[in-house]
Amino acid sequence: MGRIIRIAAAQMGPTQKADARSHTVGRMIALLEEAASKGATLVVYPELAFTTFFPRWLLEGAELLKEYERSMPNPEVQPLFDRARELGIGFYVGYAEITSEGERFNTSIIVACDGTILGKYRKVHLPGSVEPRPGAQFQQLEKRYFEYGDLGFPVYRAGAEWSGALIGMLICNDRRWPEAWRTLALQGMELLCVGYNSAAYDPNGGDTESADLRTFHAQLVAQANAYMNACWAVAVAKAGDEDGSCLIGGSCIVDPNGQIVAETTTLADEVIVADCDLDLCQQGKTKMFNFEAHRRPQWYTRITSQTGVIYPEDEIG
Amino acid sequence: MGRIIRIAAAQMGPTQKADARSHTVGRMIALLEEAASKGATLVVYPELAFTTFFPRWLLEGAELLKEYERSMPNPEVQPLFDRARELGIGFYVGYAEITSEGERFNTSIIVACDGTILGKYRKVHLPGSVEPRPGAQFQQLEKRYFEYGDLGFPVYRAGAEWSGALIGMLICNDRRWPEAWRTLALQGMELLCVGYNSAAYDPNGGDTESADLRTFHAQLVAQANAYMNACWAVAVAKAGDEDGSCLIGGSCIVDPNGQIVAETTTLADEVIVADCDLDLCQQGKTKMFNFEAHRRPQWYTRITSQTGVIYPEDEIG
Repeated sequence: MGRIIRIAAAQMGPTQKADARSHTVGRMIALLEEAASKGATLVVYPELAFTTFFPRWLLEGAELLKEYERSMPNPEVQPLFDRARELGIGFYVGYAEITSEGERFNTSIIVACDGTILGKYRKVHLPGSVEPRPGAQFQQLEKRYFEYGDLGFPVYRAGAEWSGALIGMLICNDRRWPEAWRTLALQGMELLCVGYNSAAYDPNGGDTESADLRTFHAQLVAQANAYMNACWAVAVAKAGDEDGSCLIGGSCIVDPNGQIVAETTTLADEVIVADCDLDLCQQGKTKMFNFEAHRRPQWYTRITSQTGVIYPEDEIG
Repeated sequence: MGRIIRIAAAQMGPTQKADARSHTVGRMIALLEEAASKGATLVVYPELAFTTFFPRWLLEGAELLKEYERSMPNPEVQPLFDRARELGIGFYVGYAEITSEGERFNTSIIVACDGTILGKYRKVHLPGSVEPRPGAQFQQLEKRYFEYGDLGFPVYRAGAEWSGALIGMLICNDRRWPEAWRTLALQGMELLCVGYNSAAYDPNGGDTESADLRTFHAQLVAQANAYMNACWAVAVAKAGDEDGSCLIGGSCIVDPNGQIVAETTTLADEVIVADCDLDLCQQGKTKMFNFEAHRRPQWYTRITSQTGVIYPEDEIG
């Protein structure tokens, strides 16, 4: 029988800085309707889905603040919530959050099929820098625009409509950090949702990584971490050319064997769907990756006791 | 210029239970000489390289004890050490260790080009069981035949002949555990050597994983963990049909981008070689995976504070 959820990855093409929020939400509703027509009950959108990837610019004042959501939902995004509830579909979506106290986070939520917010996550692994790079055409200022996530890595238990799935969330760069996946898997995670905006190349010429190599990296970490944590993973891009800065695509749905079962082929708005049987996690969780039987935490202490590298010759004691 | 080590992966075909140690050591010397002829200065052999994978049988007394090495080197394996020193080559090799106190470990060592033992590792992630499975044709009794490794995950600094490489070791199943790689990378690891004996299928029919899927898993974890830890990885199989129990091949040399630069094509004795430039680790170690800048250990505490899964509804506090 299995515990099957039909999941859609709703990759989004580029969103330009000048695009109205209403236009972007309209695109998201069109993706939602396509996913619904394919029978999906859970749609995964990218990181910062309602806006362009604005940390690429040094912004201030009102120009910066308009990129954030002051509540969720809010009148601008309400049409997405309304249409999802009408269709009986839930979704993961990423957005820039500003709290009533003015704290800012790179956030994602899971919205259940009845429109309630099942869970929230705030990005822990913020890449980039606080200070802009002088002379650079494009910045990566996530460390400037967001606080580090303060919710840890929570796992949420879904309702019967998703077979009681244990769902974890990550955001973009988080997916490259095995600590994040493992912390979720130690809570029984069966499904990992992650949206991303990943540069296709360094527009400032700082490295030699091609778009193909970056797409390979993005899929490799989704595949291996899904396998090593015996879970499904749905990784969804905002892709294409945003005001001259290009983002990779390569959105994919990965099974607990680390195999890609569906992937996008464009850099545009595109829906892919897969039937994800949560019971397929059991082989890994009970055998090869039976944590209780095989993990040896006493030898992992460096993972929590140190942040950076300590070379053997600098070891104290 | 780069800090280049030419490394050979010396995959071994099957070793039958009846094979004499001298025969097996002779095969290893032939592989060493082939590696030397190709210009390698470091050869990586499999796990339990001097014997068959004996944990597949329930053995007792002298029949079991003869599979272990009482010292390293010892007269039976001395010819390998002698030939390596003559050729100016060092090596990683796995073997069953029994100490003078009778403690038994699944062990590996790195031998430097001058024949001295640079470092030792004892396998932490022992798969299998203590008690034999009733009625099974083949067992997996590593938890019976070995103590859990008691050396942690040490990193060793090589000499000038290997450009001062920071080398870590894992053994077989360890490579599927991201905690092990990360603990090594937190000591600056630039090169990971791992030997393995991985079953090609479950001879007892306990799962549906094909040899192809198992080979995919083996390469996937080497690739992703090399990328996420910005290191080279050399993963080397004992392969083929050992007394009716089949082992996968798929030995590979992986660069810090997670890309396979050389891989074996047989299930037999086979040497592959690659020039591994340690300086290629620097891009990852200083940017994407700059641990000091980006890790957030306060959110990783479950990794060391719990062994098995704690479900959200069972959380205390």
